[in-house]
Amino acid sequence: MRGFAMIKLNEVGFIEKPDPVAGHRDAIVKPLAVAPCTSDIHTVYEGAVGPRENLILGHEACGQIVEVGDEVKDFKVGDKVLIPAITPDWGDTFSQAGYSVHSGGMLGGWKFSNIKDGVFGTRIHVNEADANLALLPPEIDIDVACMLSDMIPTGLHASEMSGVTFGDTVVVIGIGPVGLMCVRGAVLHGAGRLIAVGSRPKTVEVARIFGATDFISYKDGDIAEQVLALTNGVGADKVLIAGGDNDTFEPAIKMLKPGGSIGNVNYLGSGEYVKIPRVEWGVGMGHKTIHGGLMPGGRLRMEKLGSLVVNGRIDPSLMITHRFEGFDHIAEAVELMHNKPADLIKPVVICSDI
Amino acid sequence: MRGFAMIKLNEVGFIEKPDPVAGHRDAIVKPLAVAPCTSDIHTVYEGAVGPRENLILGHEACGQIVEVGDEVKDFKVGDKVLIPAITPDWGDTFSQAGYSVHSGGMLGGWKFSNIKDGVFGTRIHVNEADANLALLPPEIDIDVACMLSDMIPTGLHASEMSGVTFGDTVVVIGIGPVGLMCVRGAVLHGAGRLIAVGSRPKTVEVARIFGATDFISYKDGDIAEQVLALTNGVGADKVLIAGGDNDTFEPAIKMLKPGGSIGNVNYLGSGEYVKIPRVEWGVGMGHKTIHGGLMPGGRLRMEKLGSLVVNGRIDPSLMITHRFEGFDHIAEAVELMHNKPADLIKPVVICSDI
Amino acid sequence: MRGFAMIKLNEVGFIEKPDPVAGHRDAIVKPLAVAPCTSDIHTVYEGAVGPRENLILGHEACGQIVEVGDEVKDFKVGDKVLIPAITPDWGDTFSQAGYSVHSGGMLGGWKFSNIKDGVFGTRIHVNEADANLALLPPEIDIDVACMLSDMIPTGLHASEMSGVTFGDTVVVIGIGPVGLMCVRGAVLHGAGRLIAVGSRPKTVEVARIFGATDFISYKDGDIAEQVLALTNGVGADKVLIAGGDNDTFEPAIKMLKPGGSIGNVNYLGSGEYVKIPRVEWGVGMGHKTIHGGLMPGGRLRMEKLGSLVVNGRIDPSLMITHRFEGFDHIAEAVELMHNKPADLIKPVVICSDI
Amino acid sequence: MRGFAMIKLNEVGFIEKPDPVAGHRDAIVKPLAVAPCTSDIHTVYEGAVGPRENLILGHEACGQIVEVGDEVKDFKVGDKVLIPAITPDWGDTFSQAGYSVHSGGMLGGWKFSNIKDGVFGTRIHVNEADANLALLPPEIDIDVACMLSDMIPTGLHASEMSGVTFGDTVVVIGIGPVGLMCVRGAVLHGAGRLIAVGSRPKTVEVARIFGATDFISYKDGDIAEQVLALTNGVGADKVLIAGGDNDTFEPAIKMLKPGGSIGNVNYLGSGEYVKIPRVEWGVGMGHKTIHGGLMPGGRLRMEKLGSLVVNGRIDPSLMITHRFEGFDHIAEAVELMHNKPADLIKPVVICSDI
Repeated sequence: MRGFAMIKLNEVGFIEKPDPVAGHRDAIVKPLAVAPCTSDIHTVYEGAVGPRENLILGHEACGQIVEVGDEVKDFKVGDKVLIPAITPDWGDTFSQAGYSVHSGGMLGGWKFSNIKDGVFGTRIHVNEADANLALLPPEIDIDVACMLSDMIPTGLHASEMSGVTFGDTVVVIGIGPVGLMCVRGAVLHGAGRLIAVGSRPKTVEVARIFGATDFISYKDGDIAEQVLALTNGVGADKVLIAGGDNDTFEPAIKMLKPGGSIGNVNYLGSGEYVKIPRVEWGVGMGHKTIHGGLMPGGRLRMEKLGSLVVNGRIDPSLMITHRFEGFDHIAEAVELMHNKPADLIKPVVICSDI
Repeated sequence: MRGFAMIKLNEVGFIEKPDPVAGHRDAIVKPLAVAPCTSDIHTVYEGAVGPRENLILGHEACGQIVEVGDEVKDFKVGDKVLIPAITPDWGDTFSQAGYSVHSGGMLGGWKFSNIKDGVFGTRIHVNEADANLALLPPEIDIDVACMLSDMIPTGLHASEMSGVTFGDTVVVIGIGPVGLMCVRGAVLHGAGRLIAVGSRPKTVEVARIFGATDFISYKDGDIAEQVLALTNGVGADKVLIAGGDNDTFEPAIKMLKPGGSIGNVNYLGSGEYVKIPRVEWGVGMGHKTIHGGLMPGGRLRMEKLGSLVVNGRIDPSLMITHRFEGFDHIAEAVELMHNKPADLIKPVVICSDI
Repeated sequence: MRGFAMIKLNEVGFIEKPDPVAGHRDAIVKPLAVAPCTSDIHTVYEGAVGPRENLILGHEACGQIVEVGDEVKDFKVGDKVLIPAITPDWGDTFSQAGYSVHSGGMLGGWKFSNIKDGVFGTRIHVNEADANLALLPPEIDIDVACMLSDMIPTGLHASEMSGVTFGDTVVVIGIGPVGLMCVRGAVLHGAGRLIAVGSRPKTVEVARIFGATDFISYKDGDIAEQVLALTNGVGADKVLIAGGDNDTFEPAIKMLKPGGSIGNVNYLGSGEYVKIPRVEWGVGMGHKTIHGGLMPGGRLRMEKLGSLVVNGRIDPSLMITHRFEGFDHIAEAVELMHNKPADLIKPVVICSDI
Repeated sequence: MRGFAMIKLNEVGFIEKPDPVAGHRDAIVKPLAVAPCTSDIHTVYEGAVGPRENLILGHEACGQIVEVGDEVKDFKVGDKVLIPAITPDWGDTFSQAGYSVHSGGMLGGWKFSNIKDGVFGTRIHVNEADANLALLPPEIDIDVACMLSDMIPTGLHASEMSGVTFGDTVVVIGIGPVGLMCVRGAVLHGAGRLIAVGSRPKTVEVARIFGATDFISYKDGDIAEQVLALTNGVGADKVLIAGGDNDTFEPAIKMLKPGGSIGNVNYLGSGEYVKIPRVEWGVGMGHKTIHGGLMPGGRLRMEKLGSLVVNGRIDPSLMITHRFEGFDHIAEAVELMHNKPADLIKPVVICSDI
């Protein structure tokens, strides 16, 4: 097989590797379309998962099954499938506890381009196929399907964790593709007013379509003060974090009502401590709950979120700003994600030549 | 004051009464607009709240404050306000337990046209004004504001109770005005596919705009069988009941997945037992949870749901099919609700002459 | 292998069968101790799981591993293990939804003596050994360990479903072994006052030790009226049902506060409808939630509940009233369960001769 | 009236003040017994609530009603009552949202010795008497009753926030009186193994009776490493914090499993930021949820927790190590709390001379 890999820290390129082998319950899938993610950039250029060599990148894809293990019951060769970025071990006790994403240890459900080759290869290995794949609904295009691997489940998880409910005033910090899905997720979880923090014209335009009602920007000063000004000093019911760093939690706590909560889905790449301001956190007693979690994956999640797309609740195509045709264009798409031009939200690569 | 009242069982008419008096924390409000509800019909023609004489009807209204008690802090004469159908006693232990609607005993938060005169009078008494009124947002028209008293909070409560979440397949049984708000509420709580049970062209049209994706009808046979057929035998994640009677729970349980739940917001007017089919309820062990509850009321609820309207998440104006100008048209509006012509969803009476 | 089986409806006896075979992830276990359950009696004498022939009975046991499949990682031959009555398929979408007990369809996680041979055989087949077995803690005796298969997880599930919390007044209807575990579970979930419905001296004695504070009996009249009398007409916060039939839900609803909930863990063996009294259910709007569910199983559950025994929170030995030594005494133990003498709570058979 | 007051920062003493006046819904209570709390020490010697002059201290007491407002319905002069430390405004929107403790603004439900005089006076003013007082059950002694004002509700709140459930391994950091109630609360919420961090012989003795199974100490090194060593590297399901400071969250996060949660009930008195270690918090994605909140107060809470004492679930008398007879001994009791001798858990002052 051929794959686009992290050769080593700060270096990417195509490599050849032996084809993956399907265990009893596994499937081998060829990609129909793939999409690079900021996480791929973190992996290569920030060493987010540690030093790796010749690791095939990528965790966003849909594909077609080319081989199934002898114990796979619900899928067969030729089936077109959704592939989640997170493919847990479902028998693990963390899965039994409702945290399959941590099966095998913290973040252990994240296997692609982490503890095994990712989806930017001509062959993709999927563990526990019956539990981790979902049929691609015929109503969903293959480029849009890639948004179901990570962007949609990650963005929507922020609302789930923080418990957005009817009429909540919600702030979304960061409106890259995950932040945009935080916006849409909050609306589909009952948000009333939705204040988005971001200023790139393209993302502002899409955020508005997805349901953002107000926009503020770091360029205009402290974002906590802006939210408090917009809300007559009352603050927000929920704050969803999809951008920034350790320091972002300071304004997030400051703009949050007592009894409110934070849902963080942002990868925190450096620094020793997440900063929770003591006084505004109510000297430990303000009931401002802090959640942070990696997206849940697996089959049911894909089926459920696929249903949101099929039934018109989310239109992920609005996020796809760049399309490439041909597997080898993965290199360009990744480079685009690295450079982040102003008009970029998400690039997708159609792998029609595999 | 003048009011449109239940004179006695099966008889309505205008009556004169002394003006209500405001206690320390109460307010007296004159109606700006009012709307009749099916419950008013139940009260008069089915004796739903028991035999009553000269009880002013109505629990859906918005208004303008004409008097406040000396301990009212947040409202003043002249303020335009949303009035919820349910006005709890907030210090009661049931309120402290999260069930303010049952303050003072089961359903005790329901005072209008039940334990005191309703809102179809030229003067409306509101207990605990600071806790039960909300300012009418200037973006909301007074006819639409009446939908916030009962239709919106009741309909949305079905999703809250049953816990509709991302991608759920939801069935809404009955798509009168409450059922329509069940539809919209389910969409704003994450529903994917939404199967509505109803066939009147006007309500089907509005349900589709609110987000229903499929329609079935009692006219086409057993509704449980229809849902199972539509879902390949799998059934629904949640069933919201906004119509029918004790017998409706039988198909509801049958069409529900194990682990699913029912949210009933329908008044059950007669019969001794709600019928839960033993076998399909998993011989007691199928984790098909059955919820039923009256809408939560009070100020926060009005503010939160008002935010949904202000921010464009719900467009209640689609439900208002008949508008009357002038207080005395309440009689016609109630009669309309009694007769339920095919093109009726909700009538509203603008009380511009008070 | 040899096993004690349901030969056919109303007939039991020992039979010979081929040894079970371990798949890649399965284990074969020999029993160290087993216990019969009322469900075994329902199976044989009421046809609870339908007509079966030569089906080995039993679902309560602990054992020692004699064989493991090649993909089993955490267990090896010779390990002593807890065996839950419910052994789900963990990759199933119902498991992913948090309802592993319904993996493969409603109640599908219940395999022993239902869709395959039970634990009253000299060899027991356990599917997904890593996910369904747990090491027997050395502090737990093998007779006590049998209580972890079904009695403890079932009884405790009633409190989980109904959400017993600090200071709740809880009623437990039926104090056979499951009801006794409902009592103990409610205390360990925060119950204040605990009213037990039962009158057999032996179970009353144990219930009192487990934390019941008041006792009432069917012999003294309507149990709803008795609970209301004991609580000054207020009623209970939670009602846990571990006995009775479809009709038991009528007093359960009547004795329940608005906002309260029912947790049923009782098998409902006959009759068409569970009876929910309309008026006392608040004409559909009283927020009296009705839960009913089969116990969750699997490894994590066994480890967690085992921890309760190891750390002295539950003393299941108080429930074991009859002990037999030798595998063939299963016949007597089952017969004892069938006859239910007054001094019986649970019999256990030590299988030291296998 | 006479009261023991914070004269100014670092100075305490008895003062005279006019008697408090009861509003329509208020009550005036004379204390039967009172207890000082570490918070009183924070108030006087650390300026926890800011600079105050002649503020009567104290928020733990039970008493007897000497006057009621004209709208008080459920209490009368002479009634003996439990008084919670937190007496919310129940109509406030925060109360409606389930956070009555923040009615009127963050921590606004805390009135005694904060925004009005505390309970160390010969007359105590209680707002919204019907909603904030509870009858003293005759089974509860007046010294024990003082533990219901703050120690019991605060300690138990840690388990509520963090969601301790059946079989959890729970760590309680700090076993002063609140920590001891965290221990007991965790056991009554389902904890299996319970590791307490503390070493004073008197508190260790009581913690063991309350259900702690293991003890570790800061004196023996890093507490996170000790917990990980005790649990084979797995860590705890829940960590309850009842002592320490901003830095305590670092080991708390380190000893916590993914999917676990922290319940903080400790007042954080100084420092700018609570320290959440980024890597062990799963780089923002480890689902280690952080809760911190002030105890809920009010009548229902008192009735529910009183039920736990009446029914023998908690024996608060074990915490009372010092008893004084006579109102003026409050000075000594406060000084004792200031000095914290090794054998102190809680002192109580019986006010038999008022």
